[in-house]
Amino acid sequence: MTSLPTGRPRVNDAAIGVFDSGIGGLTVVTELKRQLPNERILYLGDTARLPYGTKSPVTIQHYSLQNASFLLQRGIKLLVVACNTASAWAIDQLSSYSPVPVIGVIEPGCLAAASVSHRGRIGVIGTNATIRSEAYPAMLKKLLPGTKVFSKACPLLVPLVEEGWLDHRVTTLVIAEYLEELKKADVDTLVLGCTHYPLLKKAFRTFLGDEVNLVCSSEAVAQQVKTLLDKEELRGNGRPEPDCFYLTDHSVTFQRIMTLFLGKEVREVEQVEIGSARDVSFRKDI
Amino acid sequence: MTSLPTGRPRVNDAAIGVFDSGIGGLTVVTELKRQLPNERILYLGDTARLPYGTKSPVTIQHYSLQNASFLLQRGIKLLVVACNTASAWAIDQLSSYSPVPVIGVIEPGCLAAASVSHRGRIGVIGTNATIRSEAYPAMLKKLLPGTKVFSKACPLLVPLVEEGWLDHRVTTLVIAEYLEELKKADVDTLVLGCTHYPLLKKAFRTFLGDEVNLVCSSEAVAQQVKTLLDKEELRGNGRPEPDCFYLTDHSVTFQRIMTLFLGKEVREVEQVEIGSARDVSFRKDI
Repeated sequence: MTSLPTGRPRVNDAAIGVFDSGIGGLTVVTELKRQLPNERILYLGDTARLPYGTKSPVTIQHYSLQNASFLLQRGIKLLVVACNTASAWAIDQLSSYSPVPVIGVIEPGCLAAASVSHRGRIGVIGTNATIRSEAYPAMLKKLLPGTKVFSKACPLLVPLVEEGWLDHRVTTLVIAEYLEELKKADVDTLVLGCTHYPLLKKAFRTFLGDEVNLVCSSEAVAQQVKTLLDKEELRGNGRPEPDCFYLTDHSVTFQRIMTLFLGKEVREVEQVEIGSARDVSFRKDI
Repeated sequence: MTSLPTGRPRVNDAAIGVFDSGIGGLTVVTELKRQLPNERILYLGDTARLPYGTKSPVTIQHYSLQNASFLLQRGIKLLVVACNTASAWAIDQLSSYSPVPVIGVIEPGCLAAASVSHRGRIGVIGTNATIRSEAYPAMLKKLLPGTKVFSKACPLLVPLVEEGWLDHRVTTLVIAEYLEELKKADVDTLVLGCTHYPLLKKAFRTFLGDEVNLVCSSEAVAQQVKTLLDKEELRGNGRPEPDCFYLTDHSVTFQRIMTLFLGKEVREVEQVEIGSARDVSFRKDI
């Protein structure tokens, strides 16, 4: 067992750690690289155990802490939880566990939605577990009291994105079916509460029309990371070391999906073992 | 660590162990209960780590051995691998590992297909990993030399079944898209190479017409189990103990899907830990 990596100095040239249940978090990485080109990223996709969206809260928390532990052991200066489901269920535990700041996707997404919504009618879509957590409505109502939030779980959208059917008529039909009630509820803003959904932005736009604001938390997350690094004087200097991509399972399918998300092929992916590995542990008192 | 449960006496009143990556294997359980009402079933669904269909062969083998170990420790007389992906990639390892007979879904499915195909043109559908393994074409060509096998991965069908969209027009469209080339190839038989697919039998029938034989391996598996128990004089006597259902993760979603598969609610489900549990091990030399 490895002890908790507390007390490790936070240095400017340390990397930003990002984890997701799978590949979707790469939309956050793309946005981080765009807004913060001088930062190094360590990305962990828990592809061996995805999806998190169907799992129980206890399991989601357990896996999230193991993922955080893996990245913290590699000396990161900041942890980004790019998975909506993990952010929804495990952000408090991760924050008390981590010796470095933790940024999830829900708060930045809600802040962005609150700032653009002009009628306070906000739709939220995500996985079963994210929607069941009610993390988005709770945060939105805190930020913008009186807001009406309409949530809808859309479990088929992740497999459709992973199949690459971004403009397929099946996807159009599925989106129409899922979003019909949000359209009827006359939402002025839609939060894309899953890192896969930005790839369907065009299809959402076609169904909902141009008046509805589409909020991708990835942009808001990168913005919040930037603000935090500036505040803590932790911005990277100069040319960073190459990014690292770790997956807990690596198959032909994942390789194809990574290319879809990043728009380019990632050749150097390291497969790592988490969970059944003996050296990954977390504090028992959490 | 617990040692390998070799040498345990095979007794008639021991249970039949069945594992699957998730809930789909319950179609095999239903068929076993129908054909063998006097047998007790221990079912393990590895819901914390599903789906297996996107994973790499090494990970599939690793998880399959852990699942087998879990059931063997509970004293089963026979192991049924109800998961097509695990059968495709791990059956040889499981057979050399297990002290009790192992029956996968691929051989029974192929035997059934070979017996009904009258023109030797057989279609096979399954997950990405099952199709990539080429286990079905290899077995079919061995059983029926000269057979032409047409394989197609259908990754969206599992999420559609799990969403409960069995007769939905989206499902009809997805099936049409996936099966178009098999229809054009004029297959006379279609092997449903995934335990979720029997729930879509009606939709396959509508698209392919009445002439095409649909082969569900679950019936063939139960038949093979029955034959083997008879041959080895291992049939259960009298009224068995209640069945046990173990899941590695249990959520509201899984509870709903279990009801969909079994046609009735399973109230007593035990959540168990596999993989990160310290006491689950398997022989290193495999």
